[in-house]
Amino acid sequence: MEARPAPASDQVPAPDLPGLRPRRTGYRRLPVQQRREQLIAVALELFASRPPEEVSLDDVAEAAGASRPLVYRYFAGGKQQLYEAALRTAAEELSGRFAVRLSGTPSEQLAAVLDGYFAFVAEHDAGYSALLRGGSVVETARTSAIVDDVRRAALRLTLRHLGVREAGPLLTLLVRSWISVVEGASLSWLDEGRALPVTELRDWLVDQFTAMAAATALRDPQTADVLAGLLALEGPDASRAARLREVLDVR
Amino acid sequence: MEARPAPASDQVPAPDLPGLRPRRTGYRRLPVQQRREQLIAVALELFASRPPEEVSLDDVAEAAGASRPLVYRYFAGGKQQLYEAALRTAAEELSGRFAVRLSGTPSEQLAAVLDGYFAFVAEHDAGYSALLRGGSVVETARTSAIVDDVRRAALRLTLRHLGVREAGPLLTLLVRSWISVVEGASLSWLDEGRALPVTELRDWLVDQFTAMAAATALRDPQTADVLAGLLALEGPDASRAARLREVLDVR
Repeated sequence: MEARPAPASDQVPAPDLPGLRPRRTGYRRLPVQQRREQLIAVALELFASRPPEEVSLDDVAEAAGASRPLVYRYFAGGKQQLYEAALRTAAEELSGRFAVRLSGTPSEQLAAVLDGYFAFVAEHDAGYSALLRGGSVVETARTSAIVDDVRRAALRLTLRHLGVREAGPLLTLLVRSWISVVEGASLSWLDEGRALPVTELRDWLVDQFTAMAAATALRDPQTADVLAGLLALEGPDASRAARLREVLDVR
Repeated sequence: MEARPAPASDQVPAPDLPGLRPRRTGYRRLPVQQRREQLIAVALELFASRPPEEVSLDDVAEAAGASRPLVYRYFAGGKQQLYEAALRTAAEELSGRFAVRLSGTPSEQLAAVLDGYFAFVAEHDAGYSALLRGGSVVETARTSAIVDDVRRAALRLTLRHLGVREAGPLLTLLVRSWISVVEGASLSWLDEGRALPVTELRDWLVDQFTAMAAATALRDPQTADVLAGLLALEGPDASRAARLREVLDVR
């Protein structure tokens, strides 16, 4: 479902820009693209603070300083269409965060990507939880496809960061599994009111990558090569691998 | 939604038992509880071989050798109610598999639980995929709650097998994360037409548990104790931990 062709400018008084939070005075018309972006931004903010079933189209209209008919003019499919547009915007933002240029050791690079990810999770809080937990009223085959696209982008870019052109089944399984651990950990983090310091969680996830790669390297030469290459680049951070070896020492 | 109080025996000719696959001849009446179980078993079989949206109530009626009104008599909520009843039955069966008595080293015990899990996954194939992948038409807050119950049972029983009474946040995160890796791995396995030998996947998951526990032990004394205890019990299997140490050696 796409929005019907929209007029060049909407007819309903709109809040002053800049800033997407509406003010109750000084309404004015917005150009079409700007209004569309404003509605999506307002929706994202609402979906971030409450479960989707508790956000109504009226809430979005009110927060945007717009009328309900105006919102329908942009999103004829109603709340579901607005939700999906907002989700698509959030998904693009998140995929963009994976694509950044990185520097430093492999562990530092992974930590930087995770910092970006947790910032995104913190920002989208309730919306992120509702979507990934499943069973939400707004969840459809389309929303699942958007989430899967993000997971595929994460897989592709992680493999690229690892310098891998064609990943075999076990290396693919490793990266996919680690991504699901990241997702699960961020959901737990939100569930428990962000009780764990995010830097601790991030470092735990970096070490999980090394450990999970080691378990995969036991039976997959490609992963063994990738892991050896990463560890060789670690420099002083290789002490973390050394500490992993210590806790595995049963003698 | 529960089925309305059902009569002592249904009024529609039913297939011969034993065996839940109907035969076209020799219909007879079934006692109520038996009919209910038969409908659920037939539904489970259909949901295992096709995505839920491709299974209709008529399909269930036909496969059960029953009429559509009879199926509605037992499941007034229609396909959704029948789906949820089938899911509940499958969830109980799966949780029961976690609760078995185990013997052998910790690795052997984990491998045995995983063998049971993969047998379940293989048996429920399409239904398992559709449910865990999200976005299915039959997915609701109720079906998600059933899936979460199974995850909680898996967490509780894993901790019990580990001899842990009260798990701290990192040990809980470790076990939850490992469970999500198991789920993801079994979905990948189905996706790829079961190309990876299931014993290889199982052993990979056993090693993942050790490796992920090691990464957690670095910063959590409780997990460090649990891991040391497990490794001490491994006996000859501790060679797997020794091999993990080798691939982590960067000198």
